[in-house]
Amino acid sequence: MAHENLTLLTPGPLTTSPLVRKAMERDWGSRDSAFVNLTSELRFMLAGLANGTDTHVAVPIGGPGTSAVEAAIGTLVGPTDRLLVLVNGAYGERVVEIARRLRIPVEIIRGPEDRPIDTDHVEAALRNNPEITHVALVHCETTTGVLNPLEEIACIVERFGRLLILDAMSSFGALPIDVTISPIAALVASSNKCLESVPGVGFVVVERTLIANAASVSPSLSLDLHAQWAAFEATGQWRFTPPVQVVAALVEALHQLKQEGGPPARLNRYQRNMNLLLAGMQKLGFVSLLARAVQAPIIATFLTPSDKTFVFRTFYESLLSRGFLIYPGKTTAVDSFRVGCIGAIDHHVMERFLTAVSEAKMAKKNFF
Amino acid sequence: MAHENLTLLTPGPLTTSPLVRKAMERDWGSRDSAFVNLTSELRFMLAGLANGTDTHVAVPIGGPGTSAVEAAIGTLVGPTDRLLVLVNGAYGERVVEIARRLRIPVEIIRGPEDRPIDTDHVEAALRNNPEITHVALVHCETTTGVLNPLEEIACIVERFGRLLILDAMSSFGALPIDVTISPIAALVASSNKCLESVPGVGFVVVERTLIANAASVSPSLSLDLHAQWAAFEATGQWRFTPPVQVVAALVEALHQLKQEGGPPARLNRYQRNMNLLLAGMQKLGFVSLLARAVQAPIIATFLTPSDKTFVFRTFYESLLSRGFLIYPGKTTAVDSFRVGCIGAIDHHVMERFLTAVSEAKMAKKNFF
Ligand SMILES: Cc1ncc(COP(=O)(O)O)c(C=O)c1O
Ligand SMILES: Cc1ncc(COP(=O)(O)O)c(C=O)c1O
Repeated sequence: MAHENLTLLTPGPLTTSPLVRKAMERDWGSRDSAFVNLTSELRFMLAGLANGTDTHVAVPIGGPGTSAVEAAIGTLVGPTDRLLVLVNGAYGERVVEIARRLRIPVEIIRGPEDRPIDTDHVEAALRNNPEITHVALVHCETTTGVLNPLEEIACIVERFGRLLILDAMSSFGALPIDVTISPIAALVASSNKCLESVPGVGFVVVERTLIANAASVSPSLSLDLHAQWAAFEATGQWRFTPPVQVVAALVEALHQLKQEGGPPARLNRYQRNMNLLLAGMQKLGFVSLLARAVQAPIIATFLTPSDKTFVFRTFYESLLSRGFLIYPGKTTAVDSFRVGCIGAIDHHVMERFLTAVSEAKMAKKNFF
Repeated sequence: MAHENLTLLTPGPLTTSPLVRKAMERDWGSRDSAFVNLTSELRFMLAGLANGTDTHVAVPIGGPGTSAVEAAIGTLVGPTDRLLVLVNGAYGERVVEIARRLRIPVEIIRGPEDRPIDTDHVEAALRNNPEITHVALVHCETTTGVLNPLEEIACIVERFGRLLILDAMSSFGALPIDVTISPIAALVASSNKCLESVPGVGFVVVERTLIANAASVSPSLSLDLHAQWAAFEATGQWRFTPPVQVVAALVEALHQLKQEGGPPARLNRYQRNMNLLLAGMQKLGFVSLLARAVQAPIIATFLTPSDKTFVFRTFYESLLSRGFLIYPGKTTAVDSFRVGCIGAIDHHVMERFLTAVSEAKMAKKNFF
């Protein structure tokens, strides 16, 4: 089966626009002034998106988003610090694993995967554990699609004088994140989710004073975020060979985000996609995992129908043959599958997707 | 100045072919069977290029080449091992720095940057230091372009029962590397040098039994090469979001390498480029740093002319305006600049480059 021209209803890599992909058509010398300028434009736009140009700097780093998370934690949290990780899904668990490998002392608050982190628990933990120095939170837990209360938690963390490290991988660029409203020491995200570019580069938007004082903490050379930042500041260049085409695509994607009207306009589009998706799937008999109030307009989790004739693999292939790629479930709580509503897609695409689902349902031989 | 359609005479990112860039034109679901198949094709071709399909496996990892080097060292060399690093340039020094950060005990043999590593020194070090378990070598030291004696060193390391980790970043795909001739435990390279693809992914071609036994050594989650390998073996999928377009470009580039006639044909093209470059530059009055016998056909280092009217910046800009990008020097031994002869370029390009150099030389106002 040819899988070209697929619409990806996944949490990234996702459907990109032709202009974003076109930005990859040329070669760049990574130490040439043209690319140095492109990099500085990138850094400026990323910090601006978080409303952090006065206080924060953006430090891009080649590789998957997980490497950027590890770079932030390994560089900003020292071995004598203590990190509280708020976990309600696989990406919170991943932060715990990163910290443990780095031998950083960890405290954990675990909550159910279908519910936001309870802010009372965070407050109690910080009150009772003065040795906690940093708190890690996943903004939108892509495991289920649940939205965690960023502003409330950021304000609690600040009130107790601790530092917040935010995994905003699947929210940055669409959901509101403003460091002048929600105090965030470091925010980590990547190119290939709500920024709607191709994968290959992550970044950390971090308080300038914090990163400036983080020399020689990281036990890793290539994931040393301080050294990465220092190279950008000193020369405008990347420490190691950057993925030049991926960077060019991301800059184009940021221009497109601006043209669309910025994160609020993008959020509207995603919200409309999600509303259509939830209503349409419900009409087709699917039950979504999350309560509406805690569902981020990023990715939805649907319970696997209990009907024995429903086979996920068959359903998946049936949608694939109709040009749509969905995702298996990730939560351990229930048997489920996921459908993303981010990327260069709009309500027309969502309507076509719902038609495809209903066709897949009709084709009884393939499906329940 | 528009820097598009530049010819990059640099050690990567370099000039890629239109077909390689065209391979980035589509989106891929990273967990879909089409991309799983692409990944397995990639891994198979990379292991095959080292003639290692029977004994070795290829483990790609997103990010710059340095991250792949760090992944190999951090996963294959434990804290109770001892690593001998053979250093005759900046990339050897980088291996030392990676190991030190990881708190791996290190021994160093340092030689002059314009000369290959002395094999007698290696033999003596291994004889006198039975506690050395691993040896790290940079095949072509891109700092100057000097070629180190891979086969001799690999055989010495094997004779003493130690393991060789090879940084073949700037040689793999062109210079002969055959694990059945040169015993290599792990070879590290990346997409954007002699494989002539875009940057964004590195890989390690590693002995299967070695990587299979390297669980839980890496202090890093995202650079754990064993876990990366285990995920490929278990599911065919990448552990973290792969740079899908970069991977697709690399597979296309590997097809092109095969079509060209494999590494021997590519080496011939590079050698012809290098011969032209060295002869032409000499005619124009430039002195190359390395003796001909130790010059790899990858990148040449030229001494900065002592003529006071020569300003590198002016020379660089003058060539840039003629469509060619060269590189500053990297060796600390002498003031120099570098010109690469790898990438999707042939002797016609080299001839045009030499014309550009002679024009830049004529324009006396700009140049000596
Ligand atoms: C919230 C969150 N954090 C981290 C990641 C990891 O990103 P990557 O797969 O690029 O390493 C993801 C990817 O889906 C994510 O959604
Ligand atoms: C021999 C060698 N090793 C390592 C590297 C580092 O690769 P990267 O810049 O992709 O991290 C290079 C890059 O030029 C190299 O030539």
